[in-house]
Amino acid sequence: MEDFMIGNVIVGQSGGPTSVINSSLVGVYKTARDRGAKKVYGMLHGIKGLLDGQYVDLSEKIKTDIDIDLLKRTPSSYLGSCRYKLPEVNEDKAVYEKIFKTLEDLEVKYFFYIGGNDSMDTIKKLSDYANLVNSDIKFMGVPKTIDNDLAVTDHTPGYGSAAKYIAATMKEIIRDGLVYDYPTITIVEIMGRNAGWLTAAAALAKGEDCEGVDMIYLPEKVFDIDKFMARVKSLSEQGRSMVIAISEGIKVADGRYVFELSDHVEFVDAFGHKQLAGSAKFLANKIGSELGIKTRAIELSTMQRCAAHMTSRTDITEAFNVGGAAVKAAFEGATGQVVVLKRISDDPYMCITETHDVHDIANVEKKIPLEWITDDDYVTDDLIHYIRPLIQAELSPIMVDGLPRHLNVNF
Amino acid sequence: MEDFMIGNVIVGQSGGPTSVINSSLVGVYKTARDRGAKKVYGMLHGIKGLLDGQYVDLSEKIKTDIDIDLLKRTPSSYLGSCRYKLPEVNEDKAVYEKIFKTLEDLEVKYFFYIGGNDSMDTIKKLSDYANLVNSDIKFMGVPKTIDNDLAVTDHTPGYGSAAKYIAATMKEIIRDGLVYDYPTITIVEIMGRNAGWLTAAAALAKGEDCEGVDMIYLPEKVFDIDKFMARVKSLSEQGRSMVIAISEGIKVADGRYVFELSDHVEFVDAFGHKQLAGSAKFLANKIGSELGIKTRAIELSTMQRCAAHMTSRTDITEAFNVGGAAVKAAFEGATGQVVVLKRISDDPYMCITETHDVHDIANVEKKIPLEWITDDDYVTDDLIHYIRPLIQAELSPIMVDGLPRHLNVNF
Repeated sequence: MEDFMIGNVIVGQSGGPTSVINSSLVGVYKTARDRGAKKVYGMLHGIKGLLDGQYVDLSEKIKTDIDIDLLKRTPSSYLGSCRYKLPEVNEDKAVYEKIFKTLEDLEVKYFFYIGGNDSMDTIKKLSDYANLVNSDIKFMGVPKTIDNDLAVTDHTPGYGSAAKYIAATMKEIIRDGLVYDYPTITIVEIMGRNAGWLTAAAALAKGEDCEGVDMIYLPEKVFDIDKFMARVKSLSEQGRSMVIAISEGIKVADGRYVFELSDHVEFVDAFGHKQLAGSAKFLANKIGSELGIKTRAIELSTMQRCAAHMTSRTDITEAFNVGGAAVKAAFEGATGQVVVLKRISDDPYMCITETHDVHDIANVEKKIPLEWITDDDYVTDDLIHYIRPLIQAELSPIMVDGLPRHLNVNF
Repeated sequence: MEDFMIGNVIVGQSGGPTSVINSSLVGVYKTARDRGAKKVYGMLHGIKGLLDGQYVDLSEKIKTDIDIDLLKRTPSSYLGSCRYKLPEVNEDKAVYEKIFKTLEDLEVKYFFYIGGNDSMDTIKKLSDYANLVNSDIKFMGVPKTIDNDLAVTDHTPGYGSAAKYIAATMKEIIRDGLVYDYPTITIVEIMGRNAGWLTAAAALAKGEDCEGVDMIYLPEKVFDIDKFMARVKSLSEQGRSMVIAISEGIKVADGRYVFELSDHVEFVDAFGHKQLAGSAKFLANKIGSELGIKTRAIELSTMQRCAAHMTSRTDITEAFNVGGAAVKAAFEGATGQVVVLKRISDDPYMCITETHDVHDIANVEKKIPLEWITDDDYVTDDLIHYIRPLIQAELSPIMVDGLPRHLNVNF
């Protein structure tokens, strides 16, 4: 506990949620309270909500120890999220003035933002602006993303639980695919637009009780559809059932997504964005019609980022810790930094937190090193050894009347 | 223990798997062994495999108590499955002679078949044939299906766990859908070609910590797409995010599945069957393009029948019990019967096993009573009260190295 009076704290969540993003929120909240913060505010829907004056006093929402334990197990950003990029200061200074006016009105001295590389851009810009105007408000980034594509940090909180969900589900799907006495091919589509970390987690399914997936296709490598079809044909001629993991982001040589090879692209959403779904279905249909093999296409979809009933205890603990470490660092004077995880030992696995300049992290995307992807459409043991510790151990859901209980959203 | 020598036993699994179908296998195996059966054989890939001479001595595969506990938690039919309908006796008597010859060679006196209403046709035909040729072999049906569409029985083992998985996942998806500060509509497609029991389980998501799904569409009622769009438009004008559960089997008035309303039906599989997938995507695209609202389509897919990491303890226990009760009844002389569950009390929930003539059960499909479906596209409390006890309590997965462990398939 500091012997001077700590100012108020505000925390927000931004970007796509994870199963454990609220554990980081708890880490910020609890650590700030424990270290003497007068008030801990939560901005609703991130910086965008704050600009609209939307915030709550978190101590009015998180009242008991059971609330804290429920919140750790509650998927989706408790405070709501946004996808909003701050303008540059020279484009629109008024936005910054408005934010800093709000923070001053709330007597906020510490600002925490839980998010991925896009959200870290917000921390970068706000801390740069604070520097410009000689504000003493501290701005700290707290990392999260299921995509694991953040630079500098060994991995991102949220990834381990998504990887665990994917690996566990792949084991079940592989079993299911073996049930009939004729070969079937199952194509499973996994999230990850540009980075294949989530899809690579399918490799963890392989073990003493499971033969694993047969092939893994990641967006880091150009997808060669002719080679793919030839490989499938060759393996299917041995009468084998197969399970193939593909990233939603795989592209052919001319830069098109695989589902765009379809004669008709119906997957354009209301905002004109191509929807990244359907590559598994496209490939399954192609195999079915060209090779006459029974196929299934499965999209793991939103469940990858919200299956809070199947989280990694390692991940939940680290998610909490990065929140807590951000508070500690900020209270000790740090600003314009992101808390990162540093793996100090592989076996036994040990990870510590450090802080790092946000300028090296904002807007940077970390992909899988090409040397971790094999020529036979799989991943190396090095990649598996990197992921495996992150899915270890469980935090049991709190089951009420047969279902996992979450903390009520009451605002 | 009987004081006369019990003959050998054979057991098979048929039709689509469930998360707990192997608990019934354990129920048959363990009860038969405990009651003095010399050998317990398992037919591989059901009656079709048996016709090809494929069977194993189960005691060589299930060796220890830990094997039994792993098998209870292993998804997908451990012995493999088939979709094979026996011919009528007058069409092909040779098939029956071959089966009975195999059973006699193995000194099998008791035959158990774990399956749904199609599989019960096999028990009906074999027990009828036994009667015809004065065989003393006993044939017993053991119910299973996630679809819950079996007649006579209060419910089917397998349904409770699928319902629990669906309800838990819907809670997570509903949370995820609230995260942004603009309205989104999520359409979740759930299994059930003709019966809506699985889709109805989405209603269980609603509770103190979850507002539940907004609408539920079941195949028991004609789907009126104009009314649906009008309802969505009206609710979306209130700025609400929505989650809508639809059965894969919903059809419009002229008998077409919803996804067949698409201009192009690419969903015909290698065998010329229309694939029952894509109605959620079709509706999501329609809402997106006509109403300009951000939509998502999610198919819960195979995970509904294989998510063994999220099972109902009530279901697993009942699945074991119907297997055990079938053995007990057969050893006491019953044949041509199916073990059914009879609910003797709602509150507290209590269910016992009985046996019932297979002729009333084979090939009969039980749908949701229309009075349990409301005019505002939801289900009644009566239906929710019927399902709720079936999802109660858990059987924790045995976690090894971060993932649920299954019993190895070693044949």
